[in-house]
Amino acid sequence: MENKLILDGTRVAAEIKEQLKERVSSLTTQGTIPCLATVLVGEDPSSATYVKMKGNACEKLGILSKRIHLSAEITTEDLLNTIHELNQDENVHGILLQHPVPSHIDERAAFEAIDIEKDVDGVTSWGFGQTSFGFGSYPSCTPAAIMAIMDFYDISIEGKHAVVVGRSPILGKPVSMLLLNRNATVTTCHSYTQNLNEIVKQADIVVAAVGKPKFIQGDWIKQGAVVMDAGYNPGNIGDADYEECEKNAGAITPVPGGVGPVTIAMLLKHTVDAAEKKLENK
Amino acid sequence: MENKLILDGTRVAAEIKEQLKERVSSLTTQGTIPCLATVLVGEDPSSATYVKMKGNACEKLGILSKRIHLSAEITTEDLLNTIHELNQDENVHGILLQHPVPSHIDERAAFEAIDIEKDVDGVTSWGFGQTSFGFGSYPSCTPAAIMAIMDFYDISIEGKHAVVVGRSPILGKPVSMLLLNRNATVTTCHSYTQNLNEIVKQADIVVAAVGKPKFIQGDWIKQGAVVMDAGYNPGNIGDADYEECEKNAGAITPVPGGVGPVTIAMLLKHTVDAAEKKLENK
Repeated sequence: MENKLILDGTRVAAEIKEQLKERVSSLTTQGTIPCLATVLVGEDPSSATYVKMKGNACEKLGILSKRIHLSAEITTEDLLNTIHELNQDENVHGILLQHPVPSHIDERAAFEAIDIEKDVDGVTSWGFGQTSFGFGSYPSCTPAAIMAIMDFYDISIEGKHAVVVGRSPILGKPVSMLLLNRNATVTTCHSYTQNLNEIVKQADIVVAAVGKPKFIQGDWIKQGAVVMDAGYNPGNIGDADYEECEKNAGAITPVPGGVGPVTIAMLLKHTVDAAEKKLENK
Repeated sequence: MENKLILDGTRVAAEIKEQLKERVSSLTTQGTIPCLATVLVGEDPSSATYVKMKGNACEKLGILSKRIHLSAEITTEDLLNTIHELNQDENVHGILLQHPVPSHIDERAAFEAIDIEKDVDGVTSWGFGQTSFGFGSYPSCTPAAIMAIMDFYDISIEGKHAVVVGRSPILGKPVSMLLLNRNATVTTCHSYTQNLNEIVKQADIVVAAVGKPKFIQGDWIKQGAVVMDAGYNPGNIGDADYEECEKNAGAITPVPGGVGPVTIAMLLKHTVDAAEKKLENK
């Protein structure tokens, strides 16, 4: 990398989707239409928007979108029952439970109830463990997207120092593990981290996964470092201060148009993977 | 910590075992004798010694030790069958498959076959995932031992920078996750890490988990840092150069008598935990 690279997630997503089209069409002619079930609980408008985007993205590719919308009043048990039904449904290949669910519901129990064969969104602890040990089928979609973008642009990972800011079960932790398995040295930071700026300054690769707008400052970025911004805050603002970080970065993902679109593409890819596996095992 | 602390694992192990005695005796009077099944494949002398130590440690506490010794010639399928039988056996509460098995056997498949309720050695990917997400019952025993020693000596973890050298599924990865969940900033290093000495020099807590004798050098250790040596190489030599590291360290585990004895104590504790859980769920 000698010149500044703006990592165009929209382009990466388009290429992934293009490759999926053929696979979907081949599956369909064999009588298997890939199907993603999305489960939305309650009326949170951003969650509703996300689920809708995902469903529409499926349909554009010929993937069935089974959209389940449950009342905010349901119990954990109701939600578990819905998930068990989807686990049993032969025609459903992937299940996505939109985060967050209303606070009276045990979200972790609901995630854990998803059959690992259908955990295309990569939310179960078992899926995380498999990914961490290098044989997972479906890593969480945002971490998978971060890796896909870096691979698309031939960004080298081996031996690099990656600093991940954030440690959530679907983002900071799995992306740390994916980077580690690709032979990066990985530092995982969070709200208790001291001298965060000094640590980020050492990074060859910075993953912003903290959920706070413009949290990663421009002067924290080492000259030439790669900045992968997984943040998506209200007003289309990332977790990194893009304009300032871009000055030092060798490569950077914009928000929007960076990690976000590839995340959806990975969800579609995992759904197609799951449908293919199901067909092979018939 | 103002003075140098030599972290006495033998003492920590003795206290853990003392607490276990009462629990074993209470279980026994209720008709449940905790039982650990150990599976040894082949004739590797160190493996045989380890398994024997573990079995003897069980028996000293009144825990049953069911010792299974299989020929080096068995197939993966044979081993899986043995594990399935132990999974089914109502009287077995924990299963330990001694690593390594002969190379023609799929060790990972064998580990994964262990019922998570009996995975007291913490080797399954699912157990790792649960531990990573903060709700695991049985983290791998060596990582659990490292945490137990630090807790025994009231070593503060929150906000500290921990550097883990090694990334194996039963050591480097899980101890990284346990430290992260206790709010340390965690850097995981390995054979591809560049400038390892510079990274270790930043550590408040160093975990040596690399499997190479005297690999961690004394001048890599920051003044006052805590050195947890999980190495156990031929000739009772740790992964850290003890004599040199001890000069800079604020606290350090010796080898032998550091992490090793506590690892066995954690295995016993997990077995008793599993037996208690079994009894509660009857």
